[in-house]
Amino acid sequence: MPTTPHVEKHFTSTEAVRDVVIGMSDGLTVPFALAAGLTGAIAASSVIVTAGLAEVAAGSIAMGLGGYLAARGDAEHYHSELAREHQEIRDEPEKEMAEVSHVLQEYGMAPDEAAILVERIRHRPEDWVRFMMRFELGLEEPNPHRVYKSAFTIGISYLVGGMIPLLPYFFVAQAQVGLLWSAGITAIALLVFGGVKGKATGTNAARSAIQTLLVGGVAATIAFLVARAFSHGG
Amino acid sequence: MPTTPHVEKHFTSTEAVRDVVIGMSDGLTVPFALAAGLTGAIAASSVIVTAGLAEVAAGSIAMGLGGYLAARGDAEHYHSELAREHQEIRDEPEKEMAEVSHVLQEYGMAPDEAAILVERIRHRPEDWVRFMMRFELGLEEPNPHRVYKSAFTIGISYLVGGMIPLLPYFFVAQAQVGLLWSAGITAIALLVFGGVKGKATGTNAARSAIQTLLVGGVAATIAFLVARAFSHGG
Repeated sequence: MPTTPHVEKHFTSTEAVRDVVIGMSDGLTVPFALAAGLTGAIAASSVIVTAGLAEVAAGSIAMGLGGYLAARGDAEHYHSELAREHQEIRDEPEKEMAEVSHVLQEYGMAPDEAAILVERIRHRPEDWVRFMMRFELGLEEPNPHRVYKSAFTIGISYLVGGMIPLLPYFFVAQAQVGLLWSAGITAIALLVFGGVKGKATGTNAARSAIQTLLVGGVAATIAFLVARAFSHGG
Repeated sequence: MPTTPHVEKHFTSTEAVRDVVIGMSDGLTVPFALAAGLTGAIAASSVIVTAGLAEVAAGSIAMGLGGYLAARGDAEHYHSELAREHQEIRDEPEKEMAEVSHVLQEYGMAPDEAAILVERIRHRPEDWVRFMMRFELGLEEPNPHRVYKSAFTIGISYLVGGMIPLLPYFFVAQAQVGLLWSAGITAIALLVFGGVKGKATGTNAARSAIQTLLVGGVAATIAFLVARAFSHGG
C-alpha cells in the first residue's frame, strides 16, 4: 500500500517502541516482584536466583512466542475478514455500497458526491474491499516481516529487563540484602525506562517515569505480601 | 462517532477477546513454566506454591496495571497526534489538503472529484482533522471506558490462568508429583483455551490449540533446563 514518508515514520516508531515497552515493562516488573516476594519467605539468594532465572526464561519465551502468535493471529484475522468482505460485496453489493457512501458522508461528502466514488469503486472489487477493510473495519494489511521482528523484540526486551532486578542476588548470599540492591537498581531502571517511554510516545516523561515506578512497586509489594502470607510467616 | 451495528460487533468482540487472550495465555504459560522450572531444582511443593503465588500476584498486577497504562498511553498518543494535526492544518493547509486528496485517489477517486470533498472538508476543521486521524494515521478515538475494563480483564485472566497450573502443588508434598498433575491439567487447559481462542478469532481451532500447547511446553522446558543448570545440578 503506498504511504507517505510521514505516515511511515509514525507507524514504524510506534510499533517498535510498543514491542520494547511490552517486553521491558513486564520484564522489569515481574521478576523483580517475584524476587521481592520470595525474599518475604525464603532467606537464601540461591533459591531466588533459580526462581528468577526460571521466570525470566519462561517469560521471555512465552512473551516472544506469544507475540509471534498474536501477530500471526492478526494476519489471519485480517485475511479471514478480507475473505468475508469479498463475499459480502458479491452477495450484498447494495448494502456494501451504502456502507461506502455512509463512511464518506460522515466526513462531509454530499450523498450525490459520495455516489460518484461508490459508482467508480464498485467496478474494482480489490479497491472496494480494501476500502471496507480500512475505513469500515479499521484493519490495515499486516506486514509479514513484523511477525518475527516483533516476537524477537518483545522476548529480548523481557530478558534484558528481567536480568536487571536479578543481578544483585548473584552477588550476595542473604536474600534481604539482595532485595535492597535489587529495589534500588530496579527503581532507577523503571524511572529511566518510564521516562524514555514517555518521551518516545510523546507524553510527559516525568509522569511516565513515576507511573512506571509505581506499577513495579505495587506489584512487588503485593507479591511480597502474598508470598509471606503463604509461607506461613516464614 | 456513529457506527453501524455490524462494525460494533466486529470491534467489541475483538478487543475483549484480545484482553482475555493477552492475560490468559501468559497466565497459563509463565506460572506453569516457573513451577516446572523450580521442580527441576527444588523438591518441596511448598516453595513452588510460594513462588508461584508470588508470580501470579506480580504478573496479574503488572499486566493489569500495565494494560491500564498502555490503554491510557494510547489515549494520550491519540490526543497528542490530534493536537499535531490541528496545528498542521493551520500551518500547512495546502499540504494537508493534498494528503486528503491523495488518500481519496488511492481508492479510485479522480483528482477533480477528490477536490470536491477537499474543498468541503477544509471549512470544517473538526471533520478534517478526524479524517486525517483515521485515514492517514489509522488512529481511532479510544473509548475511555475501555481503559478500566481492559486492565481488569487482562489482570483477572492472568490470575485465573495462573492458578490452574499451581493447583496440584497445593495438594501434594513432592514437587515432582505436583509437576505431573500440573503438566496434565495445564496441557488440557492450554488446548481448550487455544481452541476457544482460535474459534473466537475466526482461525483454525485445532491448529490454535496445538500452537498454544506448544508455547507452554517450550517455555516450561526451557525454564526447567535453566533452573536445573543454575541450581548446580540439584
